[in-house]
Amino acid sequence: MIPYQPPLQTLRFLVREVLDAPAVLAAAGRGEAGALFDEVLAQAGRVAAELLAPLNRTGDEEGVVVERGGVRMPAGFREAWTVWRDGGWTGLAGDPAHGGQGLPALLDTLVTEMVCAANLAFSITPGLTQGAIRAIAAHADDGLKGWCLPPMIAGEWTGAMALTEPQAGTDLGLLRTRAEPAAGGGHRITGQKMFISSADHDLTDNLVHLVLARLPDAPAGTRGISLFLVPKRLPDGTRNGWSVLSSEKKMGLHASPTCVVAYEGAVGWMVGAPNRGLAAMFTMMNHERLFVGIQGIGVGERAAQAALAYARQREQGRAPDGPHRADRPADPILHHPDVRRMVLSARVLTDAGRALAAWTALWLDRARQGGDAPLAEEAEEEAEDWAALLTPVVKAAGTDFGFEAAVLAQQVMGGHGYIREWGVEQLVRDVRATQIYEGTNGIQALDLVQRKLGMKGGRPADRLLAELEQAAAGLEAEPATRDMAPALRDAAARLQGVLGWLREAGAETPLDPAAGATDTLRLVALTAYGWMWALMAAAAARRPAGYDPAFLEARIGLARYFMERHLPEVAVLDARIRRGHAGLYGPGLGGELEATGG
Amino acid sequence: MIPYQPPLQTLRFLVREVLDAPAVLAAAGRGEAGALFDEVLAQAGRVAAELLAPLNRTGDEEGVVVERGGVRMPAGFREAWTVWRDGGWTGLAGDPAHGGQGLPALLDTLVTEMVCAANLAFSITPGLTQGAIRAIAAHADDGLKGWCLPPMIAGEWTGAMALTEPQAGTDLGLLRTRAEPAAGGGHRITGQKMFISSADHDLTDNLVHLVLARLPDAPAGTRGISLFLVPKRLPDGTRNGWSVLSSEKKMGLHASPTCVVAYEGAVGWMVGAPNRGLAAMFTMMNHERLFVGIQGIGVGERAAQAALAYARQREQGRAPDGPHRADRPADPILHHPDVRRMVLSARVLTDAGRALAAWTALWLDRARQGGDAPLAEEAEEEAEDWAALLTPVVKAAGTDFGFEAAVLAQQVMGGHGYIREWGVEQLVRDVRATQIYEGTNGIQALDLVQRKLGMKGGRPADRLLAELEQAAAGLEAEPATRDMAPALRDAAARLQGVLGWLREAGAETPLDPAAGATDTLRLVALTAYGWMWALMAAAAARRPAGYDPAFLEARIGLARYFMERHLPEVAVLDARIRRGHAGLYGPGLGGELEATGG
Repeated sequence: MIPYQPPLQTLRFLVREVLDAPAVLAAAGRGEAGALFDEVLAQAGRVAAELLAPLNRTGDEEGVVVERGGVRMPAGFREAWTVWRDGGWTGLAGDPAHGGQGLPALLDTLVTEMVCAANLAFSITPGLTQGAIRAIAAHADDGLKGWCLPPMIAGEWTGAMALTEPQAGTDLGLLRTRAEPAAGGGHRITGQKMFISSADHDLTDNLVHLVLARLPDAPAGTRGISLFLVPKRLPDGTRNGWSVLSSEKKMGLHASPTCVVAYEGAVGWMVGAPNRGLAAMFTMMNHERLFVGIQGIGVGERAAQAALAYARQREQGRAPDGPHRADRPADPILHHPDVRRMVLSARVLTDAGRALAAWTALWLDRARQGGDAPLAEEAEEEAEDWAALLTPVVKAAGTDFGFEAAVLAQQVMGGHGYIREWGVEQLVRDVRATQIYEGTNGIQALDLVQRKLGMKGGRPADRLLAELEQAAAGLEAEPATRDMAPALRDAAARLQGVLGWLREAGAETPLDPAAGATDTLRLVALTAYGWMWALMAAAAARRPAGYDPAFLEARIGLARYFMERHLPEVAVLDARIRRGHAGLYGPGLGGELEATGG
Repeated sequence: MIPYQPPLQTLRFLVREVLDAPAVLAAAGRGEAGALFDEVLAQAGRVAAELLAPLNRTGDEEGVVVERGGVRMPAGFREAWTVWRDGGWTGLAGDPAHGGQGLPALLDTLVTEMVCAANLAFSITPGLTQGAIRAIAAHADDGLKGWCLPPMIAGEWTGAMALTEPQAGTDLGLLRTRAEPAAGGGHRITGQKMFISSADHDLTDNLVHLVLARLPDAPAGTRGISLFLVPKRLPDGTRNGWSVLSSEKKMGLHASPTCVVAYEGAVGWMVGAPNRGLAAMFTMMNHERLFVGIQGIGVGERAAQAALAYARQREQGRAPDGPHRADRPADPILHHPDVRRMVLSARVLTDAGRALAAWTALWLDRARQGGDAPLAEEAEEEAEDWAALLTPVVKAAGTDFGFEAAVLAQQVMGGHGYIREWGVEQLVRDVRATQIYEGTNGIQALDLVQRKLGMKGGRPADRLLAELEQAAAGLEAEPATRDMAPALRDAAARLQGVLGWLREAGAETPLDPAAGATDTLRLVALTAYGWMWALMAAAAARRPAGYDPAFLEARIGLARYFMERHLPEVAVLDARIRRGHAGLYGPGLGGELEATGG
């Protein structure tokens, strides 16, 4: 495997020059945090590259084992967790009131990306734990919080979420797990859950599940679901009444347990109000959707690095513009335009995804700012809405383009991309899950078109259009970037047109927005990626001190590459969205879909 | 796993109504062959579904084992081979002079697709053997032919090709394996080869390699490569001097050996003229490229079936246009437009690929026709050129869209698409190889733009344009299909424009066609798929007897779906191709590609 290089210069440029994060955080009363970024990122990069990356392949080869109702992790994972925990990484963004360091979500996002790049399977347990911490902090009573949050933030316990049942996946309204009030407080949970990531492991001695279940008198559907905290070990140290029946054999993520869990009267405590469990769980899911987007970006970074490194060292054939290495029997394949294309595409799709995820995280930091300068309620709501709009885009685009980058890297490497030895085939197998779990990317697209684009009278969507306008103006302000503005303006105009079309068509028939949902998400994503590249190019054109000049020049070149070669896809998406549902429901297609065989 | 259904109605419709194959074959003096299609396809479908499909997952789980310098296949493969061989399938298209049945390439193509759908790993050994038979028949002397061809056609021996070396993959000019003339005739081969599919196995007692190697006095580069036939067992029954060092651990195709082979003075006999080995090997490679395209189509068919079957049975949520199954707690997910989109796309991309592969095979049958009505030399050359133009398109598009179909099916199935139980993740892992081996799809694209589009003064390309015109006219001739003609004409016009642009730009700088190669191949492929859908829709609109009316109606609906939702992508490809190489070589990008880290 080509070694992982933490992309520290890129991260520093993004934080300081593109996002101006230290100033934003200082205005939010968190000036001390801005000064810590460089050092914390450098440390995290070392841990990712030296501690976690070496376990990626061995974990894939060995996989997890279910024995005696529990999960044994691959060799080295427990030791790695201990080092990770003792380094204080589990509490990076945790609430100081419960022992956390209270550092910004932005910093946590960038640290998390490096963990995902190094070892995607390892990243899942801490990623889920962070989300569980948020849900507990937001919805549990003080007793539960005081019991759970300190050990979770300290990495002594972990968290998982137990939603899916065999008949209830995307449609949680169908779930059947029961919660009966117990004598002496709490509830007894009975039912079977599946696809539970990190439901059990031997990294820590205790862990908690957040379980969706129905109270005896609950109404049917999603309005009758409550959320329960179900630990592995009860406060008196005894084992709670659930066990792992099996862990799925999967395409990838072999070092991450994906469990079937049987709850047999397990003790649980309600989190939030009765029958309002889905809303409480969404606190966790919103965190996880951003996290999963970052997973895709981390794998994309790893793939982009591998593609470039391989293309520079592998010598085959002569470039069409004549020998580049006449002293060697062949040129590096990077000099073949088609290989160059794949290497550059993996890079531009990854860097824009990271920038959008970081942008979203910084807005969450603004929404949650406290201390000396709390936001007015209205401004806080606006920041939350803005992050809510971007969340499905970060999730689906981060993972779709992460998969694309991994497949491109594999293609650059030819047969070496297909065999296990070089590790890139594992990236493809692992990242494929991220397009599916935490709400498939089709569900993200429906969330975007059915809820997010129209929320609050379309104000968050209008803000995106305003940001695009401002970014295009930023491109025009510098001679070095001026030529890119028309492409971005064209994409913005198409987005605006599609938003109007969706409003009108959606009022006519809800089938139209649903039929164009995936295309709409991709159109929004490409346009937002164009916006991010505009910000990166404009920042580079200002020639800030402290960066390799070739690095800055490359930001402009990569932005242009994105605008010329990826952004124009919006034209096809635009046209297809406006066809509505008719094409999917045309004459004859019903027969095709009813047929039992060809 | 959802059971495989041989798509017999689709195949019959394609053979009889779209291609009019019985008449074409009759005109070629092979009227008896046309009558056999239905029965042979039905038999082959049974063997694929009942004998080969059940071994697909077990073969993947068990994999191959290298022991004592040879390969042991997974349980059941040897027995399946014996049944396959005894059924006469290995000699279907073989020369009757050597014991073959001499049936058309078209029939062989459709039979092969079903084998690939049922068990992609199994398909590799017979697929390679067919190509080796062709190369030996075309280039070996009569002695070798008489020795090898009867047992190969009878399935007693198999064939493999040994090209790649660690430093020589795409660039075969770099290969180093040596061939020294031996006392008493023949040569001694010494060197190491890798990525040799089916280099060894226990399906048969003997097999032959076609090995590329250099004679002692050979010039450097590709003009100094000769081809040798190197058997496992020599005519006297003794083991030849080569052994398998290892088989690669791969992403998929675990039941197909991918060997590193050491030749240590192995006995070989030259096939074809000295230093002309690459040309001889291309006889085999051209066959294999079509075969690999069919592999992608077979997997696409399997995936399209799985996606539809799952989407019909899985119930989650309510469709946006209200309950479709009010008697059930939820609607089948097929009623969600985004799922419908994925199911339909997997279908239209697969059926068009099959039609194009079948069209190409039928032209090979015309080129090779003998018997009572041999073609004039000129017509034979024209038919060969036409097949040569389509070969890289069938290979790359068949495999790219096969991968796309498998990924779509996986997405339709959500978590069930990611776990091994349902088998679709295996389709993704297996088919991914087909985009890489037998010349990566990037190499196919270069073959298309650098050689095939311009060959013979562009006559084969002009023929494609003429076919498109005729197909568009065919759409216009029927009220039921008339609305689709403009989309096809637009694509044809764009293709024509791109061909002109490539000619002019390519004369200026060879970097331009190379930079747009992959986009050009995709543009040609989508346009050719549009052509195939036009033929299928027009044939269905004629309402031939003997088909389910819903099946015929669906051909028209699917054609319209393709024209509306897939074909318009050509506009973006067109624009990007015309940007030439500039976007890939813009200012700043050199620095990015030289950088050692971000």
